[in-house]
Amino acid sequence: MRAPLTPDLLRRRFADVRLASLALAEPLSSEDCTAQSMADASPVKWHLAHTTWFFETFILEPHEADFQPFHAAFRVLFNSYYNGIGAKHPRAQRGLLTRPGMDAVRDYRADVDARMLRLLDQRAGDAALAALVTLGLQHEQQHQELILTDVKHLLAQNPLYPAYLDTVPAAVPLAPALEWCAFEGGLADIGHAGDGFCFDNELPRHRVFVAPFELASRLVTNGDYLAFIEAGGYRDAALWLSEGWDMVRAGQLERPLYWLDDDREFTLHGAQPLDLSAPLAHVSLYEADAYARWAGARLPTEAEWEVAASNPGGLLQLYGHRWQWTSSSYAPYPGFAPQPGAIGEYNGKFMINQYVLRGSSCATPDGHARASYRNFFPAGARWQFSGIRLAR
Amino acid sequence: MRAPLTPDLLRRRFADVRLASLALAEPLSSEDCTAQSMADASPVKWHLAHTTWFFETFILEPHEADFQPFHAAFRVLFNSYYNGIGAKHPRAQRGLLTRPGMDAVRDYRADVDARMLRLLDQRAGDAALAALVTLGLQHEQQHQELILTDVKHLLAQNPLYPAYLDTVPAAVPLAPALEWCAFEGGLADIGHAGDGFCFDNELPRHRVFVAPFELASRLVTNGDYLAFIEAGGYRDAALWLSEGWDMVRAGQLERPLYWLDDDREFTLHGAQPLDLSAPLAHVSLYEADAYARWAGARLPTEAEWEVAASNPGGLLQLYGHRWQWTSSSYAPYPGFAPQPGAIGEYNGKFMINQYVLRGSSCATPDGHARASYRNFFPAGARWQFSGIRLAR
Amino acid sequence: MRAPLTPDLLRRRFADVRLASLALAEPLSSEDCTAQSMADASPVKWHLAHTTWFFETFILEPHEADFQPFHAAFRVLFNSYYNGIGAKHPRAQRGLLTRPGMDAVRDYRADVDARMLRLLDQRAGDAALAALVTLGLQHEQQHQELILTDVKHLLAQNPLYPAYLDTVPAAVPLAPALEWCAFEGGLADIGHAGDGFCFDNELPRHRVFVAPFELASRLVTNGDYLAFIEAGGYRDAALWLSEGWDMVRAGQLERPLYWLDDDREFTLHGAQPLDLSAPLAHVSLYEADAYARWAGARLPTEAEWEVAASNPGGLLQLYGHRWQWTSSSYAPYPGFAPQPGAIGEYNGKFMINQYVLRGSSCATPDGHARASYRNFFPAGARWQFSGIRLAR
Amino acid sequence: MRAPLTPDLLRRRFADVRLASLALAEPLSSEDCTAQSMADASPVKWHLAHTTWFFETFILEPHEADFQPFHAAFRVLFNSYYNGIGAKHPRAQRGLLTRPGMDAVRDYRADVDARMLRLLDQRAGDAALAALVTLGLQHEQQHQELILTDVKHLLAQNPLYPAYLDTVPAAVPLAPALEWCAFEGGLADIGHAGDGFCFDNELPRHRVFVAPFELASRLVTNGDYLAFIEAGGYRDAALWLSEGWDMVRAGQLERPLYWLDDDREFTLHGAQPLDLSAPLAHVSLYEADAYARWAGARLPTEAEWEVAASNPGGLLQLYGHRWQWTSSSYAPYPGFAPQPGAIGEYNGKFMINQYVLRGSSCATPDGHARASYRNFFPAGARWQFSGIRLAR
Repeated sequence: MRAPLTPDLLRRRFADVRLASLALAEPLSSEDCTAQSMADASPVKWHLAHTTWFFETFILEPHEADFQPFHAAFRVLFNSYYNGIGAKHPRAQRGLLTRPGMDAVRDYRADVDARMLRLLDQRAGDAALAALVTLGLQHEQQHQELILTDVKHLLAQNPLYPAYLDTVPAAVPLAPALEWCAFEGGLADIGHAGDGFCFDNELPRHRVFVAPFELASRLVTNGDYLAFIEAGGYRDAALWLSEGWDMVRAGQLERPLYWLDDDREFTLHGAQPLDLSAPLAHVSLYEADAYARWAGARLPTEAEWEVAASNPGGLLQLYGHRWQWTSSSYAPYPGFAPQPGAIGEYNGKFMINQYVLRGSSCATPDGHARASYRNFFPAGARWQFSGIRLAR
Repeated sequence: MRAPLTPDLLRRRFADVRLASLALAEPLSSEDCTAQSMADASPVKWHLAHTTWFFETFILEPHEADFQPFHAAFRVLFNSYYNGIGAKHPRAQRGLLTRPGMDAVRDYRADVDARMLRLLDQRAGDAALAALVTLGLQHEQQHQELILTDVKHLLAQNPLYPAYLDTVPAAVPLAPALEWCAFEGGLADIGHAGDGFCFDNELPRHRVFVAPFELASRLVTNGDYLAFIEAGGYRDAALWLSEGWDMVRAGQLERPLYWLDDDREFTLHGAQPLDLSAPLAHVSLYEADAYARWAGARLPTEAEWEVAASNPGGLLQLYGHRWQWTSSSYAPYPGFAPQPGAIGEYNGKFMINQYVLRGSSCATPDGHARASYRNFFPAGARWQFSGIRLAR
Repeated sequence: MRAPLTPDLLRRRFADVRLASLALAEPLSSEDCTAQSMADASPVKWHLAHTTWFFETFILEPHEADFQPFHAAFRVLFNSYYNGIGAKHPRAQRGLLTRPGMDAVRDYRADVDARMLRLLDQRAGDAALAALVTLGLQHEQQHQELILTDVKHLLAQNPLYPAYLDTVPAAVPLAPALEWCAFEGGLADIGHAGDGFCFDNELPRHRVFVAPFELASRLVTNGDYLAFIEAGGYRDAALWLSEGWDMVRAGQLERPLYWLDDDREFTLHGAQPLDLSAPLAHVSLYEADAYARWAGARLPTEAEWEVAASNPGGLLQLYGHRWQWTSSSYAPYPGFAPQPGAIGEYNGKFMINQYVLRGSSCATPDGHARASYRNFFPAGARWQFSGIRLAR
Repeated sequence: MRAPLTPDLLRRRFADVRLASLALAEPLSSEDCTAQSMADASPVKWHLAHTTWFFETFILEPHEADFQPFHAAFRVLFNSYYNGIGAKHPRAQRGLLTRPGMDAVRDYRADVDARMLRLLDQRAGDAALAALVTLGLQHEQQHQELILTDVKHLLAQNPLYPAYLDTVPAAVPLAPALEWCAFEGGLADIGHAGDGFCFDNELPRHRVFVAPFELASRLVTNGDYLAFIEAGGYRDAALWLSEGWDMVRAGQLERPLYWLDDDREFTLHGAQPLDLSAPLAHVSLYEADAYARWAGARLPTEAEWEVAASNPGGLLQLYGHRWQWTSSSYAPYPGFAPQPGAIGEYNGKFMINQYVLRGSSCATPDGHARASYRNFFPAGARWQFSGIRLAR
C-alpha cells in the first residue's frame, strides 16, 4: 500500500472523499439513514459513523497527542469486525441505534475531520501516516458503494417503492452485439503492479498459467436473461449447482432480486420499466453460473478476467456498470501476508466461502477501480450490482 | 360497548386522546419513532399511524360521504391484524417503513382528525357511531401504553442507555408491610356491569364460584424479588413450570428484563439505581409463578382478583403501578360473542395460549382502568410493566 | 392416590400391565422400536425402558435392600423429565440410542419385574408402596397409549405406509344422528371422588358454577369434518384463532394429520379408505375450535364435560373412541398440591400453555378412563387420537 | 473413466466390493444400521441400499431385458441427490425408514447382485457397461468409507460410548520428527493421467504454475495439536478465519470432534486413551487453517499436494492415515465436462463452497487412493478422518 500523493493533495483528497459520503445521504431522511433491512446491509448512518471510526481508531488514536475519543462508547458501537480492537455491537442490531442521531453523527464526522486535517498538517511528511490515510479513504469509498446498495435494499422493502433519487434515469443505449474476444493464454503475472494504491489482497503479484480462453465483449443484458427465464431456467435443476437449486426452491426464486412482477424493476429512481438493453444486475453467483451453463458458456476465472482486462482488446463495460462474478473462490495469493495488528483483519480473514467479482459497478466511486481489484461476496449475495460476463 | 358521552364531550374527548398520543412522541426523535426492536414491539410511528388507520377504516370509510383514503397504501401498511380488512404489512418489518416519515404521519393524523371532528359534528346524535368512536379511543389508549413499553424496549437495546425523559424519577416511598386480606368466596358475578364502556372480552357478566382466598395487600417489591434471586431462585428447577425452566436456561435468565448487572435498572429515565421499595416490574408469568411458589403462595385467578377489587378492603396498588399476572388463561366468558365483521377480530381470536393480567400500570392512561378489565399476554412476555400480587 | 387392591391382585395387576406393554411391541421389528419421528414422540424401546426406569428409580431404589442399578447409565438415559432425579438424555435424541438394543431392554424389564415382584411379596402390607406401584402402573398405561400414537406417527413418515397390524380394521357402523343433550347447570362438584386411583391433577374435588349448556350426543365424524373442508374451512381466516390461522398457513394445512390425498387415511392398519362414519381423529385444538365455530357451536369446558359425563344421559362415545378437546387450559384445581419430591414433577409443572382433553380413545388401555381424568396437550398437537364433541 | 479389467476380473471385483460393504455392517445390530445421527450422515442400511440402487438404476434399468424394479418405491427412497432420476426421500429423514428392514435390504442386495453378475456374463465384451460398473464400484467404495465415519458419529452420540469393534486398537509408533521437504515448483501438469479409473472431477489433466514450496514430511499429530490448544488456540481470534471464529464461539469448540474431556477420544474401538503420536483427525478446515497459522505455516494448495505426491521424496503418511485439508476450493478443472444425463450430477454440481482434501484415510478401502484423487467437504465438516499436513 503506497500513497504517492503530496501532502496538499492528500488533504484535499481527504476532504473530497469525506464530503462525498455526506452527499450520498443528502436525498435521505434521518429515518431512512437509521433503518437496517437485513444483517448483511447496514444503515447509512452506521456507514457514516464507521468510516469515521476507522480514522479515529487507526489514525487519531495512535498518532494524536493527548488523544481523547469523541465518545467512549463509539469504539464499540461502530467497530465492524475488528476483533483486535475489542467488543463490537452486534451486526444485526445496527438498525436499533436510534442514538446517536444523524445530527450527532454529522458532529462526529466534523470533529474527526478537523482533527485529521490538523494531524495531516502537522505530519505532512509522514509517509506511513499518509499510507494509512489513503487506506482509510479507499475504505470509505468501499462504504460509499455500500451506502447505495444498502439503502436500495431498504427502500425496496417498502411497498411504496420510494425513490432515492427523484430524477428520471438516463436512457440506456441499445446493447451492442455480443462478440467473443480470444486470448491466447500462457504464463502471465497477475496482482497489483506499480506505485498506486492497492489492497493487501491484490498482492503479491505472482505468476499463473492460463489456458487459451475467450471472453464476451459485453455484459449479459436484462433481455438476454429474460430469455433464460422464459426458457424455464429457474425450473430446470440440471442447470444449477446443488446449493443454487436449494436456494431457488427455498426462496421460490423466479427472477433477479429487484425485478417486480409487472415488467418493472426497483431502482434508485423507484420502480421503473425494465430496460432490456441494460446490463443485468442483482444476480447471485448461482444464477450467474446457471445462466452461463444454459448459454453454453461458463464464468471466467479471476486470472482470466485480469489477464484480459490488462490487455488491449475489445472488451466493453469492464468498469462502471456491473461487478462481474468469477468462478474463483476468494483465496490468498501465494505469499499473501496481511498487515500486522488489527488492521490486518481487513481482508485476510474473509478468505473462505466467498467468490471474487471483478471490474466495478455504477455505484463504485470514480477512480476506485483497477484491473487487479478483488471484490468478494458469498455465492448467494444478490443486493450488490452484480452481473455476468461470459467466458468459454 | 356503550358510549354515554354527550356529543360535545365526545368531540372533546376525541381531541384529548388524540393529542395525548402525539405528546408521548414529543421527547423522541423521528429516528427513535421509526425503529422496531422486536416483532412483538412496534415503532412509535406505527402506533401513531395505526390508531389513525383504525378511525379511517372503521369509521370514516363506512360513514363519510365520498370517502377517499388519505393514502391508498396505508390500508395495508397500518393494518395490524384484521384479516377481514385484507392484506397486512408483515409485523416484523414495521421498522423498515422509513416512509411515510414522522411528518407525513402527523399530516395523516391531522387529516383524519379533522374529518372525524366534522363527522362527529354532522352525526351528533348517532349512538352507534359514538360507540365506535369510543372504541377507537379506548383502542388508542391501549396503544399509548404500548408506545411507552415499546420505546422503552428499543432504548434498552442501545448501549448508551438513552433516557426517554431527562427528568429525575420521583422517589418511591418505603413499601408498606405485606398483609394478607381475606375474602370469603362463594358465588359471585364477574364481568363488566353498568353503563360505562367495556371491551367485548369483559362480557357477558356471569356467575362463578370462588373458594375462600387471601390476597396480598401490596405488590411484590424489587427488594422482595432480590431475596428470591439471592436464594438461588433462578437456579432451582423445582420452583419452575417446565416451560419456564426451559426459558431460564435457553435465555440464561438471572433477573428481570431491565435489571442491569451493576445494581441499576433501565427505566424511561435511563439507567437508574434499583429502588428496592418499588414494585417489581418486567417479569414473565413464569417468573411470577416461580416467585410465588418460592414464597409459599400462588398467583390469583382473574375471578379472585376481580372479586377482591370489587370489594371494599385494604388492597393497595390495584391500579396505576403494575399489571398483575393471574393464573387464568385468556378464554371467552360463557356466552361470549365477538362483534360482527372485521372489528370482531379485536379480542376473540387471541383467546389461546395467553394469560390474563389485571389492574393497570404506571404507563396506563388515566381513566383507562377498571375492575373488569382483562389485559393479556403470552406467559413469556417481559417488556410490559408486569408485576406480582400474591394469593393463597 | 389410593390403592385398594389386595397384595395378590396388585402383583397380578403388575404382571398384566407389564406384559401388555411388551405385547404392544410384538408386531414391530427392533428397528421400528428404535426410531424417533419427532421430538414429541419417543421410540417404542424408550417407552419400554422408561416405564421400567420409573419402577427402578421411584420404588426399587428407595425400598430395595442393597439396591444396585441394572445399569448405572440408565438413570440418565431413561429419565424423561424429572429434574429432581438429575441429568436427562436430550429428548430429541432418543432415537439415536441404538444401544441398549431391544434385547437388552427386554432383559432390563425382566430384571426389574422380578425384583419388583419380590419386593411386593416382601412388603405385601405396605400401603404406601402399593400406592406407588399403582401410580407406576397407571404411568405405564399412559405410555401404552403413547406407544401406539408414536409408532403410528413414525410409520406414517414412511412412503411405504407400513401397517402396524396386518389385520383388516373392523367396519364402523353408521353414525347415529347428532342430538343435543341439555344439562341444567348450577353448582356442581368436579374432580375425583371415591377410593379408586386418580392422578394428583384430578384433586382436590371442588365446587364450580356451570351455566346451563348442551352437549352433542356423539362425536364429530369424518363425514361431518369433510363438509367443513369442502365448505372452505381451511381457507377462511374468520373461523380460526389467530395462532391457528398462522399454523394453517405455515404448515399449508388442508386436512387432519393422517388423511391422504386419495380419499384414504393412514391408520395402524396401513393406508385405508376414509370411513365417513368413523369419529374424526388427529385434529389440533385449533381445528376443533374452527370446526365448532363453523358449525355454530363451541367446544365444551372441562367442567361441563365432567358434569355431563357424571350424569345419566344420552351421551355416546364418551370413552374408547377419541379424546375430546375442551376449551379449558390445563391449570391446577383450587388447592392443588403436587406430591413432595421428584415424583411431584409428574403433572404440576406442565400446567401452562396446554389444553385439557377428556374421555379416552381407542388406544387407551381398558380400565384407564374415568369422568375426572384430565389428559392434556398443546393446542397444536395432532398425533394423538384427538377428536371433537360439540357444545353450545 | 476407463475400465481396463477383463470380464472375469470385473465380475470378481464386483463380488468382492459388494461383499466388503456387507462385512462392514457385521459388527452392528439392525438398530445401529437404521439410525441417523445428523443430516450429513446416513444410516448404514441406507448406504447399503443406495449403493445397490445405483447399480439397479444406472445399469440394470437401461441394460436388462424386461427390467422390473426390485421394489417400485426404492427408486425414490434410495435416490441420494440425482434430480435427473426424479423425487428423493428427504435426506434428513433417512433414519425414519425402519422399513425396509436390514433383512429386506440384504435381499435387495442379493437380488441386484445376482442380476448384475448375470448381466456381466451376458455382456462380457461391453466396454461402456464395464466402465459404468467400475464407476458403481468406486462409488460403493466411497460409501464404505462413509459407513465407518457415519456409524462412528452415531455411536459417539450414545453416552455409553459403544465400540464398533471390540478389539484393542493397534499401538501407534512414535511419530518421526517433522521435516520440511522442498519442491522447486514451476510449470506442472495435474489431474489424472494414464489408463486407470478416475472420477470426472480429476479431468482434464492440465497445466498449472506452482511457486517453490515446502511440505511437512508427516501429518500433524494429536500431541502437536494439543500444544496449540494449551497455548490458547481456541481462544485467540487472530488465528482464525472469520467464519471459523464464529463456529468456535457458536459451538463453544475447544478441541477436535471426538476428544473427550478426560484425556480420551472416542474411536471405532470405543473411548480410548488419546494417543499423542497418532495423526490428528476430525478437525474442520477452520481448525486446520488456524493451527497452520499458529505454527507459522499454511495449508497446501491441491496443486502443491499433487505435484509433491507425484514426485519421489520423503513424504510420509500420504495415504491411509488422514485426509489432508488443502486451501483449494473445489472447482472444475479447465475444460471440465460432466458426463451427460443424471450420472453427470455425480460431482460437478457440488463445486461450490467446498474444499478439497487430498490423500486418503484409515477408513478408505485399499486401492481407492491415488495422487489425483479429489475428496471434498464443506469447511466446517469434522466427522471425516480429516487431518493436517503443513506447507510453507
